[in-house]
Amino acid sequence: MISKWETIDRQEKSRGHIFRHLVAKRKSPDTGAQGEFDIIQTLHWVNVIPLTKNNEVVLVRQYRHGTDELTLEIPGGAVHWEEDIRLAGERELEEETGYKSSKWEKLGTCHPNPAFMSNVCETWLARDCEPKGKQNFDDLEEIELVTVPLKDIPNMIKNGEITHSLVIAAFHYLELLD
Amino acid sequence: MISKWETIDRQEKSRGHIFRHLVAKRKSPDTGAQGEFDIIQTLHWVNVIPLTKNNEVVLVRQYRHGTDELTLEIPGGAVHWEEDIRLAGERELEEETGYKSSKWEKLGTCHPNPAFMSNVCETWLARDCEPKGKQNFDDLEEIELVTVPLKDIPNMIKNGEITHSLVIAAFHYLELLD
Repeated sequence: MISKWETIDRQEKSRGHIFRHLVAKRKSPDTGAQGEFDIIQTLHWVNVIPLTKNNEVVLVRQYRHGTDELTLEIPGGAVHWEEDIRLAGERELEEETGYKSSKWEKLGTCHPNPAFMSNVCETWLARDCEPKGKQNFDDLEEIELVTVPLKDIPNMIKNGEITHSLVIAAFHYLELLD
Repeated sequence: MISKWETIDRQEKSRGHIFRHLVAKRKSPDTGAQGEFDIIQTLHWVNVIPLTKNNEVVLVRQYRHGTDELTLEIPGGAVHWEEDIRLAGERELEEETGYKSSKWEKLGTCHPNPAFMSNVCETWLARDCEPKGKQNFDDLEEIELVTVPLKDIPNMIKNGEITHSLVIAAFHYLELLD
């Protein structure tokens, strides 16, 4: 049986706007092996699948700094410190798309990358979305809305129009919905 | 229409074993807005769904330093510099599980997180896997094998036994297979 390792020490190596790079010194209780491990510590995230009454999904097209490319994603973002995750989803949905919903259902909770990231990402489904809110972009955020029929999503994942792992996981949770 | 931003400058802020923390100074060609953006630069990754002739999946249980928890994942890892991605998949499969396959099929290429990570993750299906190889763990790697019927995977994702976003994305690609 694999065991959790003991944390001997943890130091901050650098700090960014959206994460901290930590180095943890840890020891295996099974083998006594010891090493230093890089960790990205960040806020939890929330992603929202916004569905309209016509079964269309409201996607956001953005320029993304990690890949230096444009992407097509579902709305979402970081959950503020001590903010309720669903309320963060409502906030991000309205800020990024101007859409609102009163029918929220949790689809699942995943780990973006347990190997070196500390946080979780919750995915929510927002049904009967309507453009009754007000877009309000963060500084430096530029977003274009793209509305597509839900039935087109599998093909968009297959042909590489949608590539974000957390967005693909979100649509997988949707398929597993009872 | 959203445009790609111009990169004005890029500096390394810290360096870990598995990534570098960069800060890019960028400018929007549309609005002239300018800012600094955190980027995690890392090698590409490969993940493998190992299927046996009995339609069982060979999973790996590991302690993960990001979440400080045990996880259940498919085998995979970082692609070495200039290594062929499929060969990296074969290597990781054998090193982590001792299984080998001669039937490889690419399932998809996703971005782990385009917002701040530069890399891609390729997912491969390895059919007719057999325990004919030799496990060879990295230093500090401890792995337990868990073999489960493929038909049990959806339930394991629903009930939170499998939570890694890239593993969930991998099984989504498998479902989309023609």
